[in-house]
Amino acid sequence: MLKQVTLDGIEPLAIGAGILGTGGGGDPYMDSLQLRSEIQARGPQMVVDPQVLADDATIVIVGYIGAPTASIEKIQEGTELMRSVRLMEKHLNKSVDAIGIAEIGGGNSMGPLITGLQMGLPTVDADGMGRAFPELPMTTFLFNDEIHAAPFAMADAGENAIVVPQTVNDEWAERIARTITVSMGATAGLAGFVMTGAQFRQYCIPHTLTLAWQIGQHVLEARRQGADVPDAIASTLHGRVLLRGKISDIKRRTTEGFAKGTITIDGYDRADSNTEVDRLHIEFQNEFLIAYLNGEAQVTVPDLICIVTEEEGEPVATELLRYGMRVAVLGVPAPPQLKTERALSVVGPQAFGYREKFAPLPGGVIGVE
Amino acid sequence: MLKQVTLDGIEPLAIGAGILGTGGGGDPYMDSLQLRSEIQARGPQMVVDPQVLADDATIVIVGYIGAPTASIEKIQEGTELMRSVRLMEKHLNKSVDAIGIAEIGGGNSMGPLITGLQMGLPTVDADGMGRAFPELPMTTFLFNDEIHAAPFAMADAGENAIVVPQTVNDEWAERIARTITVSMGATAGLAGFVMTGAQFRQYCIPHTLTLAWQIGQHVLEARRQGADVPDAIASTLHGRVLLRGKISDIKRRTTEGFAKGTITIDGYDRADSNTEVDRLHIEFQNEFLIAYLNGEAQVTVPDLICIVTEEEGEPVATELLRYGMRVAVLGVPAPPQLKTERALSVVGPQAFGYREKFAPLPGGVIGVE
Repeated sequence: MLKQVTLDGIEPLAIGAGILGTGGGGDPYMDSLQLRSEIQARGPQMVVDPQVLADDATIVIVGYIGAPTASIEKIQEGTELMRSVRLMEKHLNKSVDAIGIAEIGGGNSMGPLITGLQMGLPTVDADGMGRAFPELPMTTFLFNDEIHAAPFAMADAGENAIVVPQTVNDEWAERIARTITVSMGATAGLAGFVMTGAQFRQYCIPHTLTLAWQIGQHVLEARRQGADVPDAIASTLHGRVLLRGKISDIKRRTTEGFAKGTITIDGYDRADSNTEVDRLHIEFQNEFLIAYLNGEAQVTVPDLICIVTEEEGEPVATELLRYGMRVAVLGVPAPPQLKTERALSVVGPQAFGYREKFAPLPGGVIGVE
Repeated sequence: MLKQVTLDGIEPLAIGAGILGTGGGGDPYMDSLQLRSEIQARGPQMVVDPQVLADDATIVIVGYIGAPTASIEKIQEGTELMRSVRLMEKHLNKSVDAIGIAEIGGGNSMGPLITGLQMGLPTVDADGMGRAFPELPMTTFLFNDEIHAAPFAMADAGENAIVVPQTVNDEWAERIARTITVSMGATAGLAGFVMTGAQFRQYCIPHTLTLAWQIGQHVLEARRQGADVPDAIASTLHGRVLLRGKISDIKRRTTEGFAKGTITIDGYDRADSNTEVDRLHIEFQNEFLIAYLNGEAQVTVPDLICIVTEEEGEPVATELLRYGMRVAVLGVPAPPQLKTERALSVVGPQAFGYREKFAPLPGGVIGVE
């Protein structure tokens, strides 16, 4: 298990988080630069196993909310998450004991480490998605009747600060947080989902920080050894490579605040040249949600669809996909916390407006070594 | 001076507030129904003169924010303002001593009385506009470097509650409050602009609750006596009747969250039938902002332009104006607090995008008997 994040740990973590981002979650690059400078200034960041959290510890979940496209143009000030946690501490009138990760996939894996460093608090080795999803209610912390998104606090790159003590329900929390984000210029830091250590342990997906770091380690090792990188990723994640090929078409549309679209990938020629090449269609809404191989659904959300460059195994976000790119597409079984009936009502294919039912990929549970 | 608002005081107050609404501010009718039932249940509401506020008293300003058109369809729950004040008390960690009125014009004159009744606190006989304006920064409480809109709190008809501890400036407060309002369904209660008694006294427009009530009293009296009602209003407000006539055209457009447009009113035939009739054009953005008589600007914001029905002297909101209506148009000099250089930079004609400079109406200062 990962005990601390050092300078050497940043690169593998960014690679692993990018892969778990399933095309969304934002590029970890800018955040990893800030994490580097914070670790240089303050030393490695402590990582704590959720199993060792005191039952009555106070955990707050943090993450940036907003449009990844906006965060490319509007660089974070860097203390948004810490200031959000401070607002929560003032509102709750008590100190926070550890920082929780909302979303391990993409850039939001880094902020909670930076926040912990800035505040002198450990970051818990766990998250609420095991991947990336676009909305607050899509976290395992809320797949119960006990924990709520509110109270939560938000801070922007300027001096705007907002506390939301109470919402009608978590869908309202999402709606309110999203509109506040828009008024704050499309990106903002958020801290909320207050939990005890016991509650956090019960509802989190454990050890996903370690998992992201291990994926990255294996990618780097495979590159060094000249081994097949997509195979190394698939093996770490107990998944499989669905197809290797070239992107032959991308359709994009931006509706209802999502980057939606379809990617078509044509497999390389078969040995038997009389048959057609395999063709993969992937539907996305920020994240890759359903993959159809020759018209048949192969992977359905919440199972993970990851696209990496064929040679380097570098994760590719939906907004960076382009015609002609040579990629490998992986299908990876989701953690069990995303596959309960309650979870699927929020993160299953039908929750995203598809007709398909969730058809779980066979194979082992994602877990760390 | 008004010492308390009784059942008998509601009708004149609603009439006076409607007239001071200058076409905007929302119809006081629904709010006056709630005020009636609250007074029936709890007795008259105490009104306190700003001159007698203790220097160190804590005053919070309250009002509904949102689109008047939405508030017609979406009836208030009735405790939004009180819940907002309670949120502020919790945030400030101290009790509020008196309730301040943000805007005397229109429906927002009533909520602060209801809130006071619900909380057992007096409402101060003063406000921050002396009329109606559409945005938070357009209040005299903010025409200085000392008082800010934030911290403020908002509550909706459901259980959503938001506290905004800090904003970059008051324009950001407006922007954030407005987007929160949209997420809350276009109307919400707001409490903020925390002041001491001494600060409130320095920046308020005093005795506007008494003024609204007196206007209404004079209207009711003139109706009873068969006297000319528009003349009675003009005389109470030290203003004048610009024109009596029929609405001959209305152009409306809804842009940037405002109900904008132009009203044309043709005066009745002159005695000398060889001359053209007088024609008045009134530009509005929620409120009536500039009146041109035969092409010449006669009244410019912040001076008040009030349209009332010719017979009854009933105020008419911009959204209720229609072709053929017989009306009287009044021009009324604004209170001096709206005519300072700083005030005009926020509420003068150029702040609303017009080329005209503010040309103050001659005549006395609005004041109570």
